[in-house]
Amino acid sequence: MTTRRIPDATVDRLPVYLRVLLDLAAGGQTTVSSEQLAELAGVNAAKVRKDLSHLGSYGTRGVGYEVDYLRFEITSRLGLSHESAVAIVGIGNLGRALANHAGFRDRGFPVTALFDVDDAKVGTEVDGHVIRHLDTVGDPELGPISIGVLTTPPAVAQEVANRLVAAGVTAILNFAPIVIAVPDHVTVRKVDLTLELQVLSYHQQRNEADAAGDTPPMAG
Amino acid sequence: MTTRRIPDATVDRLPVYLRVLLDLAAGGQTTVSSEQLAELAGVNAAKVRKDLSHLGSYGTRGVGYEVDYLRFEITSRLGLSHESAVAIVGIGNLGRALANHAGFRDRGFPVTALFDVDDAKVGTEVDGHVIRHLDTVGDPELGPISIGVLTTPPAVAQEVANRLVAAGVTAILNFAPIVIAVPDHVTVRKVDLTLELQVLSYHQQRNEADAAGDTPPMAG
Repeated sequence: MTTRRIPDATVDRLPVYLRVLLDLAAGGQTTVSSEQLAELAGVNAAKVRKDLSHLGSYGTRGVGYEVDYLRFEITSRLGLSHESAVAIVGIGNLGRALANHAGFRDRGFPVTALFDVDDAKVGTEVDGHVIRHLDTVGDPELGPISIGVLTTPPAVAQEVANRLVAAGVTAILNFAPIVIAVPDHVTVRKVDLTLELQVLSYHQQRNEADAAGDTPPMAG
Repeated sequence: MTTRRIPDATVDRLPVYLRVLLDLAAGGQTTVSSEQLAELAGVNAAKVRKDLSHLGSYGTRGVGYEVDYLRFEITSRLGLSHESAVAIVGIGNLGRALANHAGFRDRGFPVTALFDVDDAKVGTEVDGHVIRHLDTVGDPELGPISIGVLTTPPAVAQEVANRLVAAGVTAILNFAPIVIAVPDHVTVRKVDLTLELQVLSYHQQRNEADAAGDTPPMAG
């Protein structure tokens, strides 16, 4: 089936809407207005309506959107209708934190394998998973790996990425502070936690300026 | 000084441009075209020009932008001209990983304090920082805390946030999988690592569809 490409900024917000919808469904709510969805997601209502129009969802005037149907649509368009097995490579503090992260399993991303190259770690367990040597990454008995999470030191990140790609991994979430090169058929997303602090810092400064009355009259 | 508000999506990209500019400066490059900046930041050139226009930067035709001046402008507008002291609360695996994160210190966010409530952890060291009891969070001898990083279990996140706010913290980066309420003068940014996997999953699916020739002719 051919589906229209969704703008990147919308793709980035769809998981936020999905999280809100899951919370609403858990609370027994069956419909949601764009205003309520907007408030819970921390965006404005016009943006919610625009974003959801890319899914072909327009809501019903006076009723809003059906929570279950919208969940289904977002889940399907994000490719979340099936579980994606996650392998974590580099079991330091961050790798351990992610291996233990309940949010991954609960939302369709079970961690199925942990890899490291440190003989002192290989064979030990984290959260019920045995840490395996990276040399076994293509081992068919581990089952297919859908997403590789890179939490290695930067110096070895490219080499590890190459090995993941050679083992058939087509998506990599890269926490190593380095840009990695991959073939076109592989998708990489880089997580840089310092960026979060920088963006927070901007909003903190803005908030303080607002509190001091230093806001332009038509701030947009 | 009154400054115009910058759109949120632009604010989210400015730190990415800044990282690219720092790399270029380290390599001795003094000017950069919007095309090069765009490619290195992974966005399109028109978006780069639009984003930078919000800073009042338009570049010079045939030359581009001055790397140093653009760094200065972004640094200043993001509020990064001074260092921001970071305190981490909740020293589990994630808290430890962040305490060790060289990117924070190197980019103006030195971690100056670690807090926990577990007596087995209090008094021990992580990366040269002694873990202190959360009861000491307002202690003046620790110096001011600009940003609090919440890496506690969700059940105590709100209570810990309240204590940070009472101690004068005005910005919180929240890794706990729960929405926390704070007064208006406090800025919160939520990090949800599962969202990163969900967005990656979308692009992975898209990339596979493209490889299969399943692309609309005018994909935008």
